[in-house]
Amino acid sequence: MLLGRVVGTLVASRKEPSLEGLKFLVLRQLDVEGKKTSGYRVAADAIGAGMGEVVLYATGSAARQTEMTDRRPCDGVIMAIVDTLEVDGDVKYDKARDG
Amino acid sequence: MLLGRVVGTLVASRKEPSLEGLKFLVLRQLDVEGKKTSGYRVAADAIGAGMGEVVLYATGSAARQTEMTDRRPCDGVIMAIVDTLEVDGDVKYDKARDG
Amino acid sequence: MLLGRVVGTLVASRKEPSLEGLKFLVLRQLDVEGKKTSGYRVAADAIGAGMGEVVLYATGSAARQTEMTDRRPCDGVIMAIVDTLEVDGDVKYDKARDG
Amino acid sequence: MLLGRVVGTLVASRKEPSLEGLKFLVLRQLDVEGKKTSGYRVAADAIGAGMGEVVLYATGSAARQTEMTDRRPCDGVIMAIVDTLEVDGDVKYDKARDG
Amino acid sequence: MLLGRVVGTLVASRKEPSLEGLKFLVLRQLDVEGKKTSGYRVAADAIGAGMGEVVLYATGSAARQTEMTDRRPCDGVIMAIVDTLEVDGDVKYDKARDG
Repeated sequence: MLLGRVVGTLVASRKEPSLEGLKFLVLRQLDVEGKKTSGYRVAADAIGAGMGEVVLYATGSAARQTEMTDRRPCDGVIMAIVDTLEVDGDVKYDKARDG
Repeated sequence: MLLGRVVGTLVASRKEPSLEGLKFLVLRQLDVEGKKTSGYRVAADAIGAGMGEVVLYATGSAARQTEMTDRRPCDGVIMAIVDTLEVDGDVKYDKARDG
Repeated sequence: MLLGRVVGTLVASRKEPSLEGLKFLVLRQLDVEGKKTSGYRVAADAIGAGMGEVVLYATGSAARQTEMTDRRPCDGVIMAIVDTLEVDGDVKYDKARDG
Repeated sequence: MLLGRVVGTLVASRKEPSLEGLKFLVLRQLDVEGKKTSGYRVAADAIGAGMGEVVLYATGSAARQTEMTDRRPCDGVIMAIVDTLEVDGDVKYDKARDG
Repeated sequence: MLLGRVVGTLVASRKEPSLEGLKFLVLRQLDVEGKKTSGYRVAADAIGAGMGEVVLYATGSAARQTEMTDRRPCDGVIMAIVDTLEVDGDVKYDKARDG
């Protein structure tokens, strides 16, 4: 899994029928310090993440291992909202503090 | 999923028999602002995307999760046509405006 | 899928038994203009591609979706030989012209 | 598989229900000499790895081939703790010496 | 598949139980000319490769398509030992000559 921050939304009225009802969010990929990078991913939201939140997302076939994404042409899913991230002994991100 | 713009087509008369009838489009990969990058992908078109349209595409095993691509040696599929993309509070792409 | 040009061959007498009979070709990865890059891939040949031809290849689990590669430890397959590639309105490659 | 060093932890109270009970660790990706790179991965811990340990992790669908991660939206798993790494005839890492 | 040279070994006494008995080798990734790059991969050895040999390795789910790696959390496998590699009409590697 990688870390991302929810930075955007996307509307698509014409799509594969099986995607109906799935919500897609735009994630900016974060580095291990929680800082933004140039990478991004559009991911299905399985847990109701909100704009600005730091999340954990899975890619590849793992992205279909939720009830919402099962058997759908989806290769990225948000599977957790991060409360705190601690790296090298420092709290790099604390939702209550930085969120 | 990543964002791409349909920029080309490809004709291949000699191919794996199971690919017969699949339409392949050439996508230029876009960044999170909707700007073109040097990356590209050739993807099967599951929804009738047109030249110049901004689409969402899935790669890997997800690309086989459509009726059209099921059990075929295909690792990229266009699964949605983007109407609007909003990032960091700005509308980066609006099909009606920029399409 | 990505575009590649067949540039080489590889002989391997000691291998996983299930690979017996599979032909492996060396592909130089091409960019969206059909120009060569530094990337490459060794892929199983499912359709009888020849030296110098421009092909379309699939990677990952898609590479096992042919009769020839089914259930084999193979992560890249040539699934189509490109006749013409048209990008941004220009014919970037035409087998009859450039082949 | 790639080499990583356990450098951090992550708390996520809101997550996909099937992830309940899984422990996620933050890994800094190491190069072939055992030196840290800018890459990282958040991985499920299947074996009880400790802070600072050098581990081997698998990504993609392989990450679901443990009892703990089976059928869960998880794309990275720690599957071994490295005791010694020897490359080009030199011991690049020895847990007893460097751990 | 990509080309690699066997450059090292790795000992891991604590690991996922299903990995018991698997031998892991450290591969330096080679470019299309057979020259070493900065990339590497730790792969399971399905065929008894030796130190210094040039091999072909598969990654992703393909790595579990051998009897030895089936249903194990393994994302890289050595599936062939290269005898000769010919690219652009030149023999870039010949085991008998360069091995």
